[in-house]
Amino acid sequence: MRFFSDNAAAAHPKVIEAIAASNRLDTAYDGDEWSRKLDGAFSELFETDVRAFWVTTGTAANCLALAALCPPYRGILCHRDAHIEVDEAGAPGFFTGGAKLILLDGAGAKVTPDAVARACDAIRDDVHQVQPAAISITNATEYGLVYRAAEVAALGEFAKERGLALHMDGARFANALATTGERLADVTWRAGVDALSFGFTKNGGLNAEALILFRTGLADEIAVRRKRAGHLASKGRMLAAQILAMLEGNLWLDNARGANAAAKTLAQAAGDRLVYPVEANELFLSVTDEEAASLRAQGADFYEWGPGQIRFVTSWDSDARAVDQLAAALAAL
Amino acid sequence: MRFFSDNAAAAHPKVIEAIAASNRLDTAYDGDEWSRKLDGAFSELFETDVRAFWVTTGTAANCLALAALCPPYRGILCHRDAHIEVDEAGAPGFFTGGAKLILLDGAGAKVTPDAVARACDAIRDDVHQVQPAAISITNATEYGLVYRAAEVAALGEFAKERGLALHMDGARFANALATTGERLADVTWRAGVDALSFGFTKNGGLNAEALILFRTGLADEIAVRRKRAGHLASKGRMLAAQILAMLEGNLWLDNARGANAAAKTLAQAAGDRLVYPVEANELFLSVTDEEAASLRAQGADFYEWGPGQIRFVTSWDSDARAVDQLAAALAAL
Amino acid sequence: MRFFSDNAAAAHPKVIEAIAASNRLDTAYDGDEWSRKLDGAFSELFETDVRAFWVTTGTAANCLALAALCPPYRGILCHRDAHIEVDEAGAPGFFTGGAKLILLDGAGAKVTPDAVARACDAIRDDVHQVQPAAISITNATEYGLVYRAAEVAALGEFAKERGLALHMDGARFANALATTGERLADVTWRAGVDALSFGFTKNGGLNAEALILFRTGLADEIAVRRKRAGHLASKGRMLAAQILAMLEGNLWLDNARGANAAAKTLAQAAGDRLVYPVEANELFLSVTDEEAASLRAQGADFYEWGPGQIRFVTSWDSDARAVDQLAAALAAL
Amino acid sequence: MRFFSDNAAAAHPKVIEAIAASNRLDTAYDGDEWSRKLDGAFSELFETDVRAFWVTTGTAANCLALAALCPPYRGILCHRDAHIEVDEAGAPGFFTGGAKLILLDGAGAKVTPDAVARACDAIRDDVHQVQPAAISITNATEYGLVYRAAEVAALGEFAKERGLALHMDGARFANALATTGERLADVTWRAGVDALSFGFTKNGGLNAEALILFRTGLADEIAVRRKRAGHLASKGRMLAAQILAMLEGNLWLDNARGANAAAKTLAQAAGDRLVYPVEANELFLSVTDEEAASLRAQGADFYEWGPGQIRFVTSWDSDARAVDQLAAALAAL
Repeated sequence: MRFFSDNAAAAHPKVIEAIAASNRLDTAYDGDEWSRKLDGAFSELFETDVRAFWVTTGTAANCLALAALCPPYRGILCHRDAHIEVDEAGAPGFFTGGAKLILLDGAGAKVTPDAVARACDAIRDDVHQVQPAAISITNATEYGLVYRAAEVAALGEFAKERGLALHMDGARFANALATTGERLADVTWRAGVDALSFGFTKNGGLNAEALILFRTGLADEIAVRRKRAGHLASKGRMLAAQILAMLEGNLWLDNARGANAAAKTLAQAAGDRLVYPVEANELFLSVTDEEAASLRAQGADFYEWGPGQIRFVTSWDSDARAVDQLAAALAAL
Repeated sequence: MRFFSDNAAAAHPKVIEAIAASNRLDTAYDGDEWSRKLDGAFSELFETDVRAFWVTTGTAANCLALAALCPPYRGILCHRDAHIEVDEAGAPGFFTGGAKLILLDGAGAKVTPDAVARACDAIRDDVHQVQPAAISITNATEYGLVYRAAEVAALGEFAKERGLALHMDGARFANALATTGERLADVTWRAGVDALSFGFTKNGGLNAEALILFRTGLADEIAVRRKRAGHLASKGRMLAAQILAMLEGNLWLDNARGANAAAKTLAQAAGDRLVYPVEANELFLSVTDEEAASLRAQGADFYEWGPGQIRFVTSWDSDARAVDQLAAALAAL
Repeated sequence: MRFFSDNAAAAHPKVIEAIAASNRLDTAYDGDEWSRKLDGAFSELFETDVRAFWVTTGTAANCLALAALCPPYRGILCHRDAHIEVDEAGAPGFFTGGAKLILLDGAGAKVTPDAVARACDAIRDDVHQVQPAAISITNATEYGLVYRAAEVAALGEFAKERGLALHMDGARFANALATTGERLADVTWRAGVDALSFGFTKNGGLNAEALILFRTGLADEIAVRRKRAGHLASKGRMLAAQILAMLEGNLWLDNARGANAAAKTLAQAAGDRLVYPVEANELFLSVTDEEAASLRAQGADFYEWGPGQIRFVTSWDSDARAVDQLAAALAAL
Repeated sequence: MRFFSDNAAAAHPKVIEAIAASNRLDTAYDGDEWSRKLDGAFSELFETDVRAFWVTTGTAANCLALAALCPPYRGILCHRDAHIEVDEAGAPGFFTGGAKLILLDGAGAKVTPDAVARACDAIRDDVHQVQPAAISITNATEYGLVYRAAEVAALGEFAKERGLALHMDGARFANALATTGERLADVTWRAGVDALSFGFTKNGGLNAEALILFRTGLADEIAVRRKRAGHLASKGRMLAAQILAMLEGNLWLDNARGANAAAKTLAQAAGDRLVYPVEANELFLSVTDEEAASLRAQGADFYEWGPGQIRFVTSWDSDARAVDQLAAALAAL
């Protein structure tokens, strides 16, 4: 009953096959036939011209984007529980050259226009205080909540009014889309998103994330920043091939639906122990220490989120029996 | 007849197998069983306690090491043709926070104690001039020359006298060792090397390099810097597994021997067109434009190195027939 | 009735005289006779060997110290109202290369060991979260509160236990000392402070602050960082001369006493409108918009601190009549 | 006979007077009446709308400008003897966040369009090599040579063609202008210069340089970068007052003429020992060790520039008798 993190799941067999199939001599870096297909594949998926870059980690995707959207002397508005703030070892500071994360409150790690407005309005417009340049949101959020297109659009509108860029950390973007069933275009560029970190690793990829630029004019800068950060792999075709395999036949969506369905099953069993509604593939439960110990004793693996809270994460390959077994254990608490 | 770069070669089948074999749920980041074997495997190989980190690119391996060895306000002595100077998009400046590369001359991109001493002695010892903190050498060099242990030891001794750290970019370290037959320990830590970027990608790996720290006290810092640079892959076991497969039965050495043998064959055919002795798997030839065109017309792929020079690189999987065919073409020029 | 900020006050006549007296050819940078006296003068004042550097701004003094005390990949614990967080345009991020400010709560911008401990304990000890390296406190605080030696010592002890450095932003250090009457040594190095930004500009200097290093081993690094940040003035004797003039006959203490006394007079008049006890030369008052307007109409100049609050700052040269006049106006509200 | 450096000269009495005159309460930072006059004063001098900022050092002026003109991932073309390369402790790397200085050759530290073109043409246009973003020249050069307006215009034209910005380090700009008698506009913005570090400290100022932006759209960014680098002095009126005193009645030009005249006198005495023509206020002489010793024995103070070369620098206040005495000593060698 391993529900510690989708980070640790296996890659989908088709991804491994794709890597093996791309394992022949071709052009290095991103001149190969797989890499050259990415722009087209994502442009189709997003119904507009985009520029797409493979990178190996979500931190790299997020921070390359942020470095292009925010100069070193300005700030990025994000939730105080955002991955870029709490789990990337200060990578935004490194990639941007010292830009500041301006932290927002909000239930379930969700960012609202009101919260952003309050933060912006509290900043004196002078050279002594760091002025914001961008907003970064995570979809699904760090607590498994999902943004609807209209919610993103409201943020996008605010961003436009204030001259701010809008970045979406989509480490679990597939899980969010699997829930809303909305068009990718609607929740991204049509809603004002400038750049998206589209995660594949947690969802059946091996080590490949896509950085999608809707503001395509940033592509040249991103290409250089990627190289300069040591993220231009010579055999990049192996990364591109993974991503193409995930897009093929909407494997990304199927995988996310599987993970979400497992989470729903667990959610029903967890009932009112749930700290947040389960909208993607993460569950946060209130439990006593004894209950947590009892679950562990029954073979459940999970993350101690904080005092009295535990986290379960399902993944594309969550074992059906393990899900049922854990559901039963949760119901029996 | 593709001899453009070893960067673009396929991965060895055992590497692909190892990736597939590691493709099951385990702990994320580097807590998995493969990653946890690296320190031991390399400590055995180097006959001393080392700390070993997987990363996905040589640029990352080099620049993480340099950032730990050189503070932002000092400099790194390297050859003016060093990869870190000419082919990493300024990554050393990014990773170190602005340290300076202090450039040295030397035939075949080789660094000598004399050249280093001249450069150091030309720097006034005051706060106005950037003081050196480290030396970085490439083995085999960017022109395919190989350092013998005694040569590195001479640099190491100089470094020690002046309080400088010593880094080795070993993108083609295997090719160098295949040529000299020396012990790994002798050409590295016994010779004063503090950190080594041990390359596997050019030599049959897919996307995995090892950063080896002989100064093990730097390990904690490197671990954080790796994360902060977006280089801590969640499914790092896939990288560790590649490296372990390369070490298994000395596959790394066999592969390098294969590439070097192919280069020797070509070198004999090239004769006195060779710009540098061929000591590893790279050949630089003087040719006229017509000769270059003729080679291309015969199906040879290579790199135009500069006016009147072309570069061939062999790899572990260089096709024997292509090698013979190219050798014949070179001999016939 | 200008009580907007001590930042804008005139320099003391003796400071101007000292500048004029130092205005003759000498060695550039800090080789001149005035600069060479600083180490000795401050070592005497602090009753221990220190290294002292002139710089032109408090931001430079603070951030040079922080860059030496905290590597780019770690964090600095400070109050969320600290000057380095809210009023230095992100300078700590720039000087350190992206270190994070980890924000603490506490009444009157005062930092307590408890608050620091809570913040430290909330940080997982892994590579994903930014680990703290230093604590920075401001004395007197941004709200005019003063640390007693025992309070600093408690922080220093905590810092030592956790392996953290301790920095003091002493933009109004003189005002703090004028209040407590404690020995400088007791509130700094004996209490565990590693580096102090000793402010003179707000207290009768023209453009000179002293960065005092109790951890003298950092001096060489600070000297280089100062140059590299463009803060090594060629005619630095003009800065050293200002500082020496301020130390001469304890002018710094006399000036601070004058400012504090003026603040006390205003404080008595302000009565229970005071938001914080007045321990140095700043007063924060609760007023209605109408009261604020009335004060302005009577010729008072002050800072609108936020909704319903205004700030007055006295300085060494606060005009006695203006003080009495404002006191009367406050009493009459 | 102190001719070590103009860096160490006294400030002009009018500058000291201006500081004293500005020594009264006013608005902090650059809101005071003196600072607010700078834009106008320099706009008049340069016959176009400019934005002007005071800073305390030439390093700060240069590097703030370069940081605004060159992103962290590109490069700045400059002479290998440029002050920013050899005498600023790596400050360009610090301010820009790791941009690379791309070094050019050229007699007397002078940069020509040919040298720039050769350097640019040697850079492959790909993401592996650092692409240039700006050219920086020093006028007068580090060897005392002066650019005529036509020379700068040729560089400006090249810069425009290649999309490069053009920066001028004018630490001794006054000396250059005193020699050519050209209009300031002609040698700067009309010739394509985007930003100028206009030095006053070496020429009779105390600690004040002006950063002049002809590309006025950069002003907001520069203002923030200046603050963030700790270069926004609270009593900035003291800096502005110095600069205004230097502009008043063209004191800057008179001072430079004085220094240049002294240099001419020495140059005539030095005859064919001169390594470069004397076009400003610096002289480089070939001497034997014995000759150097003899000059020292006669009381001359100078800089040992390198093997067999010594440097003399005259300044606005060079003592006429000392000049004559040194001239006699030189003639007698």
